[in-house]
Amino acid sequence: MATNKPLILVSNDDGITSRGIRALVETMMQLGEVVVVAPNSPQSGMGHAITVGNTLRLDRSTVFAEEKIAAYECSGTPADCIKLAKHHVLKDRRPDLVVSGINHGSNSSVSVLYSGTMSAAIEAALEGLPAIGFSLCDYSATADFSHALPFVKRIAAQALESGIPADVALNVNIPARTEGEIKGIRVCRQAKAKWTEVFDQRKDPHGRSYYWMAGNFVNFDKGEDTDEWALSNNFVSIVPCTFDLTAHHALRDLHTWSL
Amino acid sequence: MATNKPLILVSNDDGITSRGIRALVETMMQLGEVVVVAPNSPQSGMGHAITVGNTLRLDRSTVFAEEKIAAYECSGTPADCIKLAKHHVLKDRRPDLVVSGINHGSNSSVSVLYSGTMSAAIEAALEGLPAIGFSLCDYSATADFSHALPFVKRIAAQALESGIPADVALNVNIPARTEGEIKGIRVCRQAKAKWTEVFDQRKDPHGRSYYWMAGNFVNFDKGEDTDEWALSNNFVSIVPCTFDLTAHHALRDLHTWSL
Repeated sequence: MATNKPLILVSNDDGITSRGIRALVETMMQLGEVVVVAPNSPQSGMGHAITVGNTLRLDRSTVFAEEKIAAYECSGTPADCIKLAKHHVLKDRRPDLVVSGINHGSNSSVSVLYSGTMSAAIEAALEGLPAIGFSLCDYSATADFSHALPFVKRIAAQALESGIPADVALNVNIPARTEGEIKGIRVCRQAKAKWTEVFDQRKDPHGRSYYWMAGNFVNFDKGEDTDEWALSNNFVSIVPCTFDLTAHHALRDLHTWSL
Repeated sequence: MATNKPLILVSNDDGITSRGIRALVETMMQLGEVVVVAPNSPQSGMGHAITVGNTLRLDRSTVFAEEKIAAYECSGTPADCIKLAKHHVLKDRRPDLVVSGINHGSNSSVSVLYSGTMSAAIEAALEGLPAIGFSLCDYSATADFSHALPFVKRIAAQALESGIPADVALNVNIPARTEGEIKGIRVCRQAKAKWTEVFDQRKDPHGRSYYWMAGNFVNFDKGEDTDEWALSNNFVSIVPCTFDLTAHHALRDLHTWSL
């Protein structure tokens, strides 16, 4: 069923029934033909995990039946979903854009490393596809996405029109509704920050210890060109992300090692 | 129990009972005091996943009892292990070096993104600790690590002596024994390559489809300064890796967008 409309592949990490992916699908339907391949269960914090030692399920989903959208739910991770979409579901068609999200919670700064939302986008970039991950800085399952959608639509439309630089996926974060009116959009670098973990040690009913990880985000970066600065000043942040992890600046130092 | 020996934290992604971590522990014991915090089950392909919606177990392990080494096994991912080590097990001590591996299988080029071995090293770098991930280009559970150990020891000793550039983790890959005598060590950039997946679709006993992911590695990069070139020419490769995913070269292009 060929159409002249752009083909947009949608995935996420909160799972195919989340409100965030529904908001994203409805917005992308205004820009093109939508195909959904998303996890059948929440996959938050899965980073760039893939399913290597186990089997995968991929089934037609009825979640978007009313919208008449081809939707598939997968037992695997967000990166698995993109691989299955590219090499199986859409093996004879090439998406014009891959979008992931809208994530329930921020993926700014170093959170990009742990983010299933962004791993879907980065996996798509690895496949040579233009890709964007969208996240709302509100972890609530009932978060209000409405103020974010005009920005999501504008950025996706611009990507369809101008393309995205090769080998780059965009990490888009949007301030929560509660922060008031958004001032605009900033192209940023990833802020230098970290999560300082606190492990809450408890006892199970059998007397054995278990732990909950509970982190505090610490931003060391005072720059006004970072995603953290943009978000805390109520701008939408866009960070172009690469999958080349080479620390090019460090190559020279290491060449001085006597190996 | 304070000592003057360097404190070396060891983790991996194949699990605490794998032969690779044993080879690494035995080698690190020649350089310092070793503490092990590693997964209690295989975590290959976990990327930078963390355990956010579930509890974690962390128990003393008897795997290295004979070596009189403090060892802990964790129910979580390699990144969880490093977080638990830094903020719980070693909260009053600072490791002089964090090493991860030796992985049963290559983590060169883009495989670094999917690698639990390297996510442990990158998580340590995020924590400000000097860190190295070691991988042997041999997936076999019975792989011969003996030819790799002099290189592992030399690189770790150099890192203890010179330090590692800030915010960088080293991705070290070592050719398989079967490739013949290793020619030396090369400092490299990450080769531009990808995995082209083939999904092997099968039917379960109930007639429902399931899939096995089976990838082919495709190297597009003809450069002689890459990890792939080094490994295919029988050199050990060292790639310095950053956790700043910003595609700095793409910032200018995006500033031309009309947003």
